[in-house]
Amino acid sequence: MPVREPMRIMIAPSGFKESIDAPTVAGAIAAGVHRVMPEALIDTAPMVDGGEGSATAMARSTGGTVVPVRVDGPVGRTVPAHFGILGGPGPRTALVEMAAAAGLRLVPRDARDPGRTSTYGVGTLIRAALDEGCRRIIVGCGDSGTCDGGAGMLQALGADVLDSAGAPIGRGGYEVARATHLDVRGMDPRLRDTEIVLACNPCNILTGPKGVAEVFGPQKGADAAQVRRLGAAMDNWAALLAEHSGLDLRTAPGTGASGGLGAGAAGVLGARLSPRFDVLLDGVDLDGRLAAADLVITAEGAIDFQTPNGKVPAEVARRAKLSGKPVIALAGTIGRGAWRTYGAGIDAYTGIIAAPVDLGGAMEQAVALTTDAAERTLRLVLVGASLGAAAEQRPVAAAACPA
Amino acid sequence: MPVREPMRIMIAPSGFKESIDAPTVAGAIAAGVHRVMPEALIDTAPMVDGGEGSATAMARSTGGTVVPVRVDGPVGRTVPAHFGILGGPGPRTALVEMAAAAGLRLVPRDARDPGRTSTYGVGTLIRAALDEGCRRIIVGCGDSGTCDGGAGMLQALGADVLDSAGAPIGRGGYEVARATHLDVRGMDPRLRDTEIVLACNPCNILTGPKGVAEVFGPQKGADAAQVRRLGAAMDNWAALLAEHSGLDLRTAPGTGASGGLGAGAAGVLGARLSPRFDVLLDGVDLDGRLAAADLVITAEGAIDFQTPNGKVPAEVARRAKLSGKPVIALAGTIGRGAWRTYGAGIDAYTGIIAAPVDLGGAMEQAVALTTDAAERTLRLVLVGASLGAAAEQRPVAAAACPA
Repeated sequence: MPVREPMRIMIAPSGFKESIDAPTVAGAIAAGVHRVMPEALIDTAPMVDGGEGSATAMARSTGGTVVPVRVDGPVGRTVPAHFGILGGPGPRTALVEMAAAAGLRLVPRDARDPGRTSTYGVGTLIRAALDEGCRRIIVGCGDSGTCDGGAGMLQALGADVLDSAGAPIGRGGYEVARATHLDVRGMDPRLRDTEIVLACNPCNILTGPKGVAEVFGPQKGADAAQVRRLGAAMDNWAALLAEHSGLDLRTAPGTGASGGLGAGAAGVLGARLSPRFDVLLDGVDLDGRLAAADLVITAEGAIDFQTPNGKVPAEVARRAKLSGKPVIALAGTIGRGAWRTYGAGIDAYTGIIAAPVDLGGAMEQAVALTTDAAERTLRLVLVGASLGAAAEQRPVAAAACPA
Repeated sequence: MPVREPMRIMIAPSGFKESIDAPTVAGAIAAGVHRVMPEALIDTAPMVDGGEGSATAMARSTGGTVVPVRVDGPVGRTVPAHFGILGGPGPRTALVEMAAAAGLRLVPRDARDPGRTSTYGVGTLIRAALDEGCRRIIVGCGDSGTCDGGAGMLQALGADVLDSAGAPIGRGGYEVARATHLDVRGMDPRLRDTEIVLACNPCNILTGPKGVAEVFGPQKGADAAQVRRLGAAMDNWAALLAEHSGLDLRTAPGTGASGGLGAGAAGVLGARLSPRFDVLLDGVDLDGRLAAADLVITAEGAIDFQTPNGKVPAEVARRAKLSGKPVIALAGTIGRGAWRTYGAGIDAYTGIIAAPVDLGGAMEQAVALTTDAAERTLRLVLVGASLGAAAEQRPVAAAACPA
């Protein structure tokens, strides 16, 4: 038998929300791979999407630190939040995960009215990052529980958002409908020489039928009437921001990110709104590393009909396909419509759950389940490899699955 | 691309106990395979082990019939039972599944004392098979709730099992300790020209430290003292059978099958005790069909540390390895120690459960879950195949998993 190069396996998973973070998932998968192929060359790139868990995971995977900060949470109560300071070269950079200060999970179920929740705490985190000497701040969007156009964040940074009587408006999206004037003279002066980049989904826009109120209002708890009120508030906010900045932010890519935080950040802070994976993978050379791999394994807490819409496994698969690499996804949970991921560059997926279990039990055992699943998966792959070139020639037919 | 033969896939699953029978499992797997490889040549051999569900599955897969019969169950109460009449050529053959008349599942939890349960109903099923004109009767062992040496079965067939006063003993294993004489003059005369074969696990023996009382008594509900009583009863029964038949049945292979039913059947009915898969696969040519396959898929309701002990997936794997075929097992549930199956010829296994679920839910959805799991599995195999000959050269390392 000829001596061969060991197989090169790229492991690029998301974290499993509310369970284990991306570096932990990557380590669990690597352990399972090594059980089967001790000689495999494993390259891990823990992936974050900017949402919940991103700051901690990025700080961890770059050798940075996590700074705890108490902030006014989305419903006004003080909550423990945090931001990450990334390790590595270049200017001291913070990753402010907006969900850590204003995420949907911080909004009690009986208070889920996105007209009343505020991004104020996000501004407090940005201030704290400035205090730590960060002059480059990445704001990770996603998993927000707000729809205030980022007005709360600006208020926390010293902006006066005023009504027609010249009085400051209160917090929350409904108040933004009453805003008629922006006074930024009291804003933190350190912001002037600070680069702010939003890592956001460019599909999210501020106003109109595909605007943030319509698309995300309901999942944040708004009923139809509340969605209409919030839509009007965002229209008003866009007008005010245009007057202030000269920018038309109504439907520009990313302006709707995190309940319109994108628009407020762009219009007042001069933030750049960038596709989240471009920002978060800056310096990671994911494409080059994928091109060097024989096989790519990604993962997410749930794989379902939403996965192809720019979730981590779909992004990894899209990039892997640039160099034609096979992609396998491990799922904490396989949900409805998961088969749609076959159209998004994922060649095969499998679940980590081995036996009947409730969600809590699965989350508690997530590391062991993931390692075992990775082992099983590699063994199936090796069965395929043993079928050899004959099977290789037989193409995979298009998915013909029920919805 | 050259024209290739379609892949040949052998599907040889067990049923999932208390959920779906073997032919249904085989069909569900085939459907999943066909989603990915519509051109695959699929050969299905639903497997039974002689235990619970075997009679119905074998009747179904051979084009035979199932005959319902009411019998005295293991604790004396009447229960609905059944036996199978197999389709196909040769003498009219019944498959009497002993578990249908005296299975552990028919013993209420609060009555689980194998000293008091009886195989009487098994004799009633044999009589019913004789009534249907069957002159070849296969008795499938496994999943029994009894330890009476088959005395109850013999009583139902007209044998007198008598105590030292010449009075008939009662039912159950403890009574067998009092038996001193066997009178077979009243037995059903049709038995004389009927071939009876027991499909049993040859590892099960009647007496001694590896005897049926010691090994299976506890899982049937016996405590230590009850195990000792039953051990003594089986010693007595062996002596009585030796006196009657001239055979030493104490530790002969299969004599301990189904709580010693093997010994009673061999000593009084002249039954042949045969390894279960040899009997149940008679005429199936499983080995030849496995040799013709590129890939073998088996399945069982649970795969765990017990699987290598002659369960269906292990038997299929053992036979597949005679011709060097790769074997994948699908598991309803992956249990403790499942990794031991890697040492039993199973190259890879995976579970059917996709998301957190309770056992009842998993069983209800078993067909859909199995089909989806088969699809996912084939896709992983095809990823492996796409890695081509390079990966093929890399051997799978020995399992290095925790217990």
